Amino acid sequence: MRISELSTRTQVPVATLKYYLREGLLPAGTATSRTQASYDAGHVDRVRLIRALLESGGLSIARVRQVLAALDGPEVGRHHLLGVAQQAITPPLPEHPDPEWTRIATQFVEQRGWCIPPDEPLLVLLGEQLRLAVAAGVESADETLLSRYADVADRLAEIDVDSVPAAPERALRQVAVGTLLTDPMILTLRRLAQQALSSERSTR
Amino acid sequence: MRISELSTRTQVPVATLKYYLREGLLPAGTATSRTQASYDAGHVDRVRLIRALLESGGLSIARVRQVLAALDGPEVGRHHLLGVAQQAITPPLPEHPDPEWTRIATQFVEQRGWCIPPDEPLLVLLGEQLRLAVAAGVESADETLLSRYADVADRLAEIDVDSVPAAPERALRQVAVGTLLTDPMILTLRRLAQQALSSERSTR
Repeated sequence: MRISELSTRTQVPVATLKYYLREGLLPAGTATSRTQASYDAGHVDRVRLIRALLESGGLSIARVRQVLAALDGPEVGRHHLLGVAQQAITPPLPEHPDPEWTRIATQFVEQRGWCIPPDEPLLVLLGEQLRLAVAAGVESADETLLSRYADVADRLAEIDVDSVPAAPERALRQVAVGTLLTDPMILTLRRLAQQALSSERSTR
Repeated sequence: MRISELSTRTQVPVATLKYYLREGLLPAGTATSRTQASYDAGHVDRVRLIRALLESGGLSIARVRQVLAALDGPEVGRHHLLGVAQQAITPPLPEHPDPEWTRIATQFVEQRGWCIPPDEPLLVLLGEQLRLAVAAGVESADETLLSRYADVADRLAEIDVDSVPAAPERALRQVAVGTLLTDPMILTLRRLAQQALSSERSTR
């Protein structure tokens, strides 16, 4: 198809598609003349992935390029792909994390039997979140409560991983964008469930 | 204690503490002279809470002020208390929500048997989150998957509500603030659990 049809099918303006081509996010089409190129279904999927990462995922062009580079790189396993997708959606880490809290987070994850590399940046993030919650006097940072939240996270992960499609391009989209987009949904459902439970108990 | 000691104990610079005082986030200390005031343990707790809300919760100064106002405000009927506290931590609603998606969210919650007032703003938020996810092609917005996330939310709410045993009014407000501070932790645990599960399955 021509670029105009790619534009129609993805609802992305031609000028924007050309921008993606210049930025190297979208691979060049097959040249059909000096000024024209032909695009295929792979380009449609790629444009949709770029849009989802930029618009809904809220990622920068640089981070989208990082995700796509991993996708286009040498054959990777699904597990590595998940790590790459997660890394692209991980918020910036604290500049001066407290190593003691990273250690506590690492130890918690180890004791739980989760197989996580010790240099995983999410461990630094979890440590920092624990530190802040404890500093604010939230008892939820207590070991038992943390375990209960981790139980819930295990159930979430089962839903998430079960719903990952086999094709790498769609898998990346599902994990990176799906996780980003369902995060707020889960937090909203959490609040609604709190209200429902609270209302149920107060009328008992 | 003097402001310098408050600074040492909270590890927040004096200039920042003065900023919190000016912004009305931190109540004034007891004046001990024309230029000095005395602060107590309540101030230490309050500063820690402010820090956690700003850093971990990622709230703006204006929203922190709103949360603190809800915490300090007059006691309201127990029935609506959780809702009031939750409202303070609810992100701004979309300006022009699609009523059709609010209806879908409301219907979902009803069918689930959650007792939620139909004018609850969280329903508008959930509808908008659903709309965005569907637009990005995330299959998680599918009814079955949404139900599975709601099951997880039910378990989260049980942990949340159980962790405040006798639930006096102030404690219920703490549920709302505690929820805000544990939100990011749960999302990090979700990603770690995804990795653990994915690693487990790929080595099987």
